[in-house]
Amino acid sequence: MPEDNDNPYLVSCSAPVNIAVIKYWGKRDEDLILPINSSLSVTLHQDQLKTTTTVAVSRLFKEDRLWLNGKEEDITHPRLQSCLREIRRLARKRRNDGNPDSAGLSHKVHICSVNNFPTAAGLASSAAGFACLVYSLAQAFGVEGDLSGIARQGSGSACRSMYGGFVEWKMGSREDGKDSVAQQVEPESHWPELRILVLVASAKRKPIGSTSGMQTSVQTSLLLKHRAESVVPRRMDEMTEAIRRKDFPAFAELTMKDSNQFHASCLDTYPPIFYLSSVSQQVIHLVHRYNRHYGETRVAYSFDAGPNAVIFTSQQHVPEFVQVVQHFFPPDANGEDFIKGLPVTDAVLSEELKQAVGLEPMPKGINYIISTKAGPGPRVISDPSQHLLSSDGFPKKTL
Amino acid sequence: MPEDNDNPYLVSCSAPVNIAVIKYWGKRDEDLILPINSSLSVTLHQDQLKTTTTVAVSRLFKEDRLWLNGKEEDITHPRLQSCLREIRRLARKRRNDGNPDSAGLSHKVHICSVNNFPTAAGLASSAAGFACLVYSLAQAFGVEGDLSGIARQGSGSACRSMYGGFVEWKMGSREDGKDSVAQQVEPESHWPELRILVLVASAKRKPIGSTSGMQTSVQTSLLLKHRAESVVPRRMDEMTEAIRRKDFPAFAELTMKDSNQFHASCLDTYPPIFYLSSVSQQVIHLVHRYNRHYGETRVAYSFDAGPNAVIFTSQQHVPEFVQVVQHFFPPDANGEDFIKGLPVTDAVLSEELKQAVGLEPMPKGINYIISTKAGPGPRVISDPSQHLLSSDGFPKKTL
Repeated sequence: MPEDNDNPYLVSCSAPVNIAVIKYWGKRDEDLILPINSSLSVTLHQDQLKTTTTVAVSRLFKEDRLWLNGKEEDITHPRLQSCLREIRRLARKRRNDGNPDSAGLSHKVHICSVNNFPTAAGLASSAAGFACLVYSLAQAFGVEGDLSGIARQGSGSACRSMYGGFVEWKMGSREDGKDSVAQQVEPESHWPELRILVLVASAKRKPIGSTSGMQTSVQTSLLLKHRAESVVPRRMDEMTEAIRRKDFPAFAELTMKDSNQFHASCLDTYPPIFYLSSVSQQVIHLVHRYNRHYGETRVAYSFDAGPNAVIFTSQQHVPEFVQVVQHFFPPDANGEDFIKGLPVTDAVLSEELKQAVGLEPMPKGINYIISTKAGPGPRVISDPSQHLLSSDGFPKKTL
Repeated sequence: MPEDNDNPYLVSCSAPVNIAVIKYWGKRDEDLILPINSSLSVTLHQDQLKTTTTVAVSRLFKEDRLWLNGKEEDITHPRLQSCLREIRRLARKRRNDGNPDSAGLSHKVHICSVNNFPTAAGLASSAAGFACLVYSLAQAFGVEGDLSGIARQGSGSACRSMYGGFVEWKMGSREDGKDSVAQQVEPESHWPELRILVLVASAKRKPIGSTSGMQTSVQTSLLLKHRAESVVPRRMDEMTEAIRRKDFPAFAELTMKDSNQFHASCLDTYPPIFYLSSVSQQVIHLVHRYNRHYGETRVAYSFDAGPNAVIFTSQQHVPEFVQVVQHFFPPDANGEDFIKGLPVTDAVLSEELKQAVGLEPMPKGINYIISTKAGPGPRVISDPSQHLLSSDGFPKKTL
């Protein structure tokens, strides 16, 4: 950052959400956030889902402060502090190595962050949030290189949001976690016809949080231990290979099996954890029956720690599959605003297909669909009008 | 059977239902019905749940025939044929060894069987049914000794219904299955204060049958394989020990964990199998919150291949727990006929307990409760008026 100016130095960045196709569930180190197995995800496109963060640095600020979605939050949270500390440590190292532009190290920061999707959507926002925080702080303090190990210390899966496309989080083996980092398997341009639909399910109950959920699972599930040690290593290789070859059926089946195994591990936890609602189960049945009808795997589902389904399919199957979803989960209104994001063309459902799926429709089971695709990693927002903090370093009034 | 009489020889027996606390799921041999792991069950009392079967043998019968719950069924089903063949083989062996009373071997049989509980209750009736069939045929043909290996060939879990109390089904290791038999761990008199409540859940959809379900699980679930090989052997020892010591918390926790792990294996199956409904999940939450409120494990649940919960608890906790169930699953009418079986005294729920459980009530989620306890194995019904077949060997008109 440029020095010697009473105006705060401002930088804004955006970062994406990611959805794991080989799931992360369980830490071997709670403080450093080191996982019990590697994982692999698809970065979703920021045109549909992103976090935007502005960091302001000024010698006039009295303390580090944080605003999330318009509300000031406690910045002393250990995971936030880990990210701030690690970025400042790297910046200090850079300065000590004789690099310029790493001043402001003793200055306090103001951080302001918003999601372009409602929290109520139940989408894991912490990955995009911490990725964006770390990326923005790194910009502000002039830190370069792989930052996924720092994002990981904010929220495990945040490390995977540091890259676009298809991203692997290597569990690593070192005790200090230095080798537990993310790396890109393939860029988002690799598989352009892949499409992603987020089916936002109506939820009655707030499910148990993933941090405490995975702790209990690690402590009590014998199946999770077996999964981490003996199942995931081979699946990581198979998934990487399926993505490299753009082999949709292989990718899809492995994605569904791994989602199911993650939820099986939750059920094997004591007391058991349920994230799949009756709506989620209906989506699972629907996908399998849809595929069975066509005699090939055209669509896959994946569920994180909540009832929303993430659907993977090929561009050509999107219109019909969206119609199927809309038929078996009749929306509240006329289907208006049911589909957000990338435009979806109309399609007509055959009676044959409806009968092949043959499920009892669940009205309003799905609130809306976000239509998206794989996208790039975090980026700097060059337009200064997009800053979330005004020139005095405080949140803009519009928030 | 006595010979030389044109009147059929009639014998009637009853046999119990059993509920596994270490679950059987998956065969290593489909024809012989040999399991991939040992299992352990509690035999339920026949005063509440039983199958009654009458076998008639007559030289005048032209063919083997079978009536189930008043309807004639196809007796050529391979599993029925296995049981008939094996009993006749043993009877022939007895005769060849010079024993009397094993005549009628060339005669055909008429079999009539009824359950004293509605099929709609979704209780696995095949275990009691095949146990009763084999026990009755053995009586008719004068066969003695352990018959669990024959019952097993009718329906795997039927072998455990051949004994009362607490029963182990040893998986065995022989290819011919001769060592895959049931044996009693403790008689029903061992743990008189143990009580069992069957919570019959309202079900919307008929779940996948256990035969094809377990086939798919064996073929696709890596977690089931691990469970069978590495988890169940130790649990069998722990469960046997918990029963021997009448250690309710140990028994209860293992029962719940094993039920959950069975359902986890179903979810790890591809395509996944769901047996737990939202009602089942609510029962699970309710039990854990109830136990947490008291700071001790007073109640346990177990679920088979369907949404009904089987609750284990101690006699002293039955009245309050039944009230809790009734509160969080308000019955249709005034609670009349909500509780069947062993009488349950009234209890008053404290506001504190209601709040500690703190679930949203699910009206009509549970149809009724069957209150029962551990009971004896199959027995002969000596009263001839109880025969289901009349003296001509055909079903009585009242059926």
